[in-house]
Amino acid sequence: MTDDRFFRRSGPFSLAELASHVGGELCAEAPDAFLIRGLAPLDSAESGDLSVFSDRKWSAHFATSRASAIVTNSTLGLREHNGTWLLLVQDPALAFAQIGHLFYPPPGDHDAGVHARAQVAETASIGAGSRIDAGAVIGQDARLGLRCHIASNAVIGEGVVIGDDCRVGANTTISHALIGARVRIGSNNSIGGEGFGFVAGPKGPMRVAQLGRVIIENDVRIGGNCAIDRGAIGDTVVGMGTAIDNLVQIAHNVRIGRHCLIAGQSGIAGSSTLGDQVMMGGQVGINDHITIGARVRIAAKSGVIHDTAEGEVIGGYPAMPVRQWHRQTVAARGKRSLGKPD
Amino acid sequence: MTDDRFFRRSGPFSLAELASHVGGELCAEAPDAFLIRGLAPLDSAESGDLSVFSDRKWSAHFATSRASAIVTNSTLGLREHNGTWLLLVQDPALAFAQIGHLFYPPPGDHDAGVHARAQVAETASIGAGSRIDAGAVIGQDARLGLRCHIASNAVIGEGVVIGDDCRVGANTTISHALIGARVRIGSNNSIGGEGFGFVAGPKGPMRVAQLGRVIIENDVRIGGNCAIDRGAIGDTVVGMGTAIDNLVQIAHNVRIGRHCLIAGQSGIAGSSTLGDQVMMGGQVGINDHITIGARVRIAAKSGVIHDTAEGEVIGGYPAMPVRQWHRQTVAARGKRSLGKPD
Amino acid sequence: MTDDRFFRRSGPFSLAELASHVGGELCAEAPDAFLIRGLAPLDSAESGDLSVFSDRKWSAHFATSRASAIVTNSTLGLREHNGTWLLLVQDPALAFAQIGHLFYPPPGDHDAGVHARAQVAETASIGAGSRIDAGAVIGQDARLGLRCHIASNAVIGEGVVIGDDCRVGANTTISHALIGARVRIGSNNSIGGEGFGFVAGPKGPMRVAQLGRVIIENDVRIGGNCAIDRGAIGDTVVGMGTAIDNLVQIAHNVRIGRHCLIAGQSGIAGSSTLGDQVMMGGQVGINDHITIGARVRIAAKSGVIHDTAEGEVIGGYPAMPVRQWHRQTVAARGKRSLGKPD
Repeated sequence: MTDDRFFRRSGPFSLAELASHVGGELCAEAPDAFLIRGLAPLDSAESGDLSVFSDRKWSAHFATSRASAIVTNSTLGLREHNGTWLLLVQDPALAFAQIGHLFYPPPGDHDAGVHARAQVAETASIGAGSRIDAGAVIGQDARLGLRCHIASNAVIGEGVVIGDDCRVGANTTISHALIGARVRIGSNNSIGGEGFGFVAGPKGPMRVAQLGRVIIENDVRIGGNCAIDRGAIGDTVVGMGTAIDNLVQIAHNVRIGRHCLIAGQSGIAGSSTLGDQVMMGGQVGINDHITIGARVRIAAKSGVIHDTAEGEVIGGYPAMPVRQWHRQTVAARGKRSLGKPD
Repeated sequence: MTDDRFFRRSGPFSLAELASHVGGELCAEAPDAFLIRGLAPLDSAESGDLSVFSDRKWSAHFATSRASAIVTNSTLGLREHNGTWLLLVQDPALAFAQIGHLFYPPPGDHDAGVHARAQVAETASIGAGSRIDAGAVIGQDARLGLRCHIASNAVIGEGVVIGDDCRVGANTTISHALIGARVRIGSNNSIGGEGFGFVAGPKGPMRVAQLGRVIIENDVRIGGNCAIDRGAIGDTVVGMGTAIDNLVQIAHNVRIGRHCLIAGQSGIAGSSTLGDQVMMGGQVGINDHITIGARVRIAAKSGVIHDTAEGEVIGGYPAMPVRQWHRQTVAARGKRSLGKPD
Repeated sequence: MTDDRFFRRSGPFSLAELASHVGGELCAEAPDAFLIRGLAPLDSAESGDLSVFSDRKWSAHFATSRASAIVTNSTLGLREHNGTWLLLVQDPALAFAQIGHLFYPPPGDHDAGVHARAQVAETASIGAGSRIDAGAVIGQDARLGLRCHIASNAVIGEGVVIGDDCRVGANTTISHALIGARVRIGSNNSIGGEGFGFVAGPKGPMRVAQLGRVIIENDVRIGGNCAIDRGAIGDTVVGMGTAIDNLVQIAHNVRIGRHCLIAGQSGIAGSSTLGDQVMMGGQVGINDHITIGARVRIAAKSGVIHDTAEGEVIGGYPAMPVRQWHRQTVAARGKRSLGKPD
């Protein structure tokens, strides 16, 4: 069961309600009216909990789980288990995620208000239903939408615009940015900082004034400890619905499409462009002025130095089609036969 | 045009003034007295804006730009365009950067004063003309120079010394550090933290007390979300004029020379030394106790495990001369012919 | 000598006391009662300082050091030097570290109290002897142990539990976490953030509610600017005595064993497990759902995509036994003879 110190559960919900919510089917023995109180992993679930079995690698936990009911599919459900009631669906991971949002709806119903120890500039405007926590600072002429939550010690700079239903995590710094609705930003991020721009000058590199903005579209999700620089001139853009993990660097004038997924510690150098639905593994680097087509998938730790066409799957450094990369790493390993035996 | 919510423009300036400022020449049709109000990229510029055309890859935008005037050179200026007035210079990128600083001078003229909600220790000393924002904390015996700006919720530790005309971004933490003049530090950095030092002890790794400092010389520029550890014993040093991008790690006792450029997500392990004017691409790693000569250039994502002589250009992991590295990656790719056809 | 602005020295200690403390032997000429006032590196030490000579690469500094006494071993001590008194031990680096803790004990004796500008929720409980600095925020129902120090502008979320004698650095954000005793956490970290979890949904990736916690066991040490996400369901765990450097990413449901060392900018993807005493170099990446055995050592910048048995030493990407990796990199370089001469 989730820890009540940190999460507020809705429910309980009956097995019949849960089955209906996900369009699934209960096994014959399951009592429709049985109440599920919360969610737990297979190996720590107890009576009253619902769990999920979505991959056969967890078969041993499935066999012995004490969960009252388990979401799974008809194939996995045939495996040995201890009589736990099954809720059968086509995609157990998806169904369990849907049930997760049912039990733990996003906390939109926070107490509204500006904490006495928040610092809101007189010329800032704060939408109804918003909550500003202790130590947060809202700069002059900043505009927040309805029902926003700005956590403690976050700093929202002068003129920044934030749409409705956004959340900004503790200790995050935002400046020079226009942010859409329903954007969720974690803690300790730097958004709108000065990009790393230099031109060769007579006495060595000369800094270029960074005069653009950061545009973050609706429904974007940003993790923690990221750095997203404003444009040098023109804007840095993060497209609608894109999700960014932790410790990611987005340089000036990068343009990221819609519904991209960018995993942790990846970096995109200046002025590169990503199409929609691009997926990047962790620790990927993309050179500056590169164009990545829609739906490109990039293996973790790759270094991308060439434009990449729509739909390609690439890996390695320099990144290449992933099948070629796999052959290359296998070939390199094969050279073992040329070396001395271990 | 830049967004007035975020930037305060000087000007307007006449075309003649701008030409004189950069030592350039106006095309014959351009009226000397025409007033330029601001800067914009080729593709979003409007009447009254100045733009720049410095690379032929932007030729299509040059052909259709609505900027009133465009900085370019005599070769690029021959390309097709829609009659926009041209300001011809030798190096358009440099000239445009110089004009950028003319229109948008650094905001040295901030309102001085300590915000009522800043926390400044009684024994700290704050130079005249400095500005300390809400939520900033200045520790005991810290000393700030003239005209500094410490942004909201930054924390300056006990005894830290900061020179004149420095800027420390929001939510940045500084301790155990001596900082020169005109240093610009972004947001959410950790400067002066405890290095990662261990010796093998009888019961496993034993932590080594970290007793040194961070020395940051004049005119250094640090981005956001970096970690620069203090020396274990002796100092970590960042040399004059060096610029560090975001999410960079500088370990204890590293010594960085003057006018280096260190791109995002790079890391330098303990006690390594960089000469002057070293340039590092993004996501580079340098092993501990390595010496890198002056003017060495390191390709993005390289891993440097050997000392490197002055002026070398290196890449790969382990890093090697860049021509050798390119041959190696080409050779590896060439093995495709040995594999099965795609 | 260390900088008195930043460090409070104990002592002085006589040479005899120091020799006794580390079980070493003074050279015949050394006066037992001579007082050592502090520690310094060989090349900047002065009269009254103790230094260390633990590696012959510092022989030139040993020859000319002005330290009053130097810790070394009987072999290194034979090298040329200028008559400085020697304190001979088996392991100079270990002995010097032990003397470091003698001169600079951890500052456990801070002034206790809650700063008038800290914000502590009424329902939070703060153990005796704890110190909460200006701007720190402690959420509802949070519980801190005895003698903790929460630095300025740190944010401790609702319900978080922290054991005795812990230290949380400035601007660090903690939520959804249970933390043991004697844990030291640097500045600007995000602990307990929402993991990067998605399932494929009918309209593209759907976010999965992140319902777990972060468990940090006793004696863990975390540097600066790290991101440690809470579990998706179940917990993310950092085992007893493990040390984590700066800018490290620990994803949801990762389980790290005891006494591991994880160097800077490394990342561990979701649900991977590390045994005890694993050592990771800098910029390492570990894929999701990987199991790493006890005492595995991973070279810097490696990418680990396979389970790894206890005690292995691995490197490269994909990571392989380190001897094989070295052969491979040497072989690749050998191809130079096939290319054109430089």
